[in-house]
Amino acid sequence: MSTETRPQSVRRLTDLGVGARFSLHPHCDDYVEVITSALAAADATRVDVRTDDVSTFVRGEEADVIRYVHAALAAAGGTRWHVVAHVLLSRGCPGEVACELPDDVLLDAVGVPELPPTGLSASAHWALYPLDDSGTDHLAQIMEAIGTAGSRATASPEHFVTRLDGDLSDVLTAVAAGWLEAARHVRHVVTHVTVSMHSPSGGPR
Amino acid sequence: MSTETRPQSVRRLTDLGVGARFSLHPHCDDYVEVITSALAAADATRVDVRTDDVSTFVRGEEADVIRYVHAALAAAGGTRWHVVAHVLLSRGCPGEVACELPDDVLLDAVGVPELPPTGLSASAHWALYPLDDSGTDHLAQIMEAIGTAGSRATASPEHFVTRLDGDLSDVLTAVAAGWLEAARHVRHVVTHVTVSMHSPSGGPR
Repeated sequence: MSTETRPQSVRRLTDLGVGARFSLHPHCDDYVEVITSALAAADATRVDVRTDDVSTFVRGEEADVIRYVHAALAAAGGTRWHVVAHVLLSRGCPGEVACELPDDVLLDAVGVPELPPTGLSASAHWALYPLDDSGTDHLAQIMEAIGTAGSRATASPEHFVTRLDGDLSDVLTAVAAGWLEAARHVRHVVTHVTVSMHSPSGGPR
Repeated sequence: MSTETRPQSVRRLTDLGVGARFSLHPHCDDYVEVITSALAAADATRVDVRTDDVSTFVRGEEADVIRYVHAALAAAGGTRWHVVAHVLLSRGCPGEVACELPDDVLLDAVGVPELPPTGLSASAHWALYPLDDSGTDHLAQIMEAIGTAGSRATASPEHFVTRLDGDLSDVLTAVAAGWLEAARHVRHVVTHVTVSMHSPSGGPR
């Protein structure tokens, strides 16, 4: 599918509802310290960050949002506790519940940021949701995006999700690449990933 | 939107990719015991359950899947540790990555099971994704489903999610009601919810 076939009305990406929600789950008694330290360790100069009792909201340009989430997860994983993070990335719905953009707004192709290797092995369950109202085949878009993602982390199909294994940076790069690939063709794209580090199970049981 | 306008070819619901993935995150050193005990406490006689190192997969009829997830979360929350659960409910995509059903398959209306009150206060961030290829307005479907859900838990809009507060049973009933309401009109519907219990933050910061 080529973006050349779509209208060329481009707006500023930050007006298009780009952002994330994520939560960190250190499986230890000292979890408050691990979470607050991880959030403090991530550079927030280019994003808006608001943490409530359920998750942390991040608003900014795609690359900055991804870098912030990556830095927070890397810091939490660096403690060597078993840490699970759940990350939602969303693009194309600027309202709180309502999308106020016309459906013909084209979203420019956005590059995936280079994330520095962490040395942390991560296993993830990843899902991608292109929320298109134009009647196109959403599964074809998902498969194309998964193909893009598979060039970094090891990707394998599971029920309802794609499993990703690799360095935390490669796993998040795969998720970001899939999300941004789908977003070239669909206005409203959301992706969810559950990322596990230092699990004592260490693979399928 | 009325289901009467759709074709009446109904298949068995278990053939239609009904199931869940969920993960439990007890924020304590003794997390393995909390997770394994919670999974063991939930009645699995009517569902297939497979746990790997990232999440637990549950396959069965809607009501049975919801009851199993509810029982596992209630057991984990009953320990009084700060526990967060992430739950994905999916319906309408039986394959691992590919949907093999024709788009005109009608999914029957399914009732929301009665979940016994737990006495556990839960706060949740909930998102609903109707993955429709028919060119209908997915936001209208989400808003209708949120209206259905709001009759149980307290619902308030946040960026990218709807916040739900109430007894764990009411929160999960709201999620299930929204999911099954959307599934009356869209073949492939996925919902994600992050549920927090016994958070020391206890409300927005």
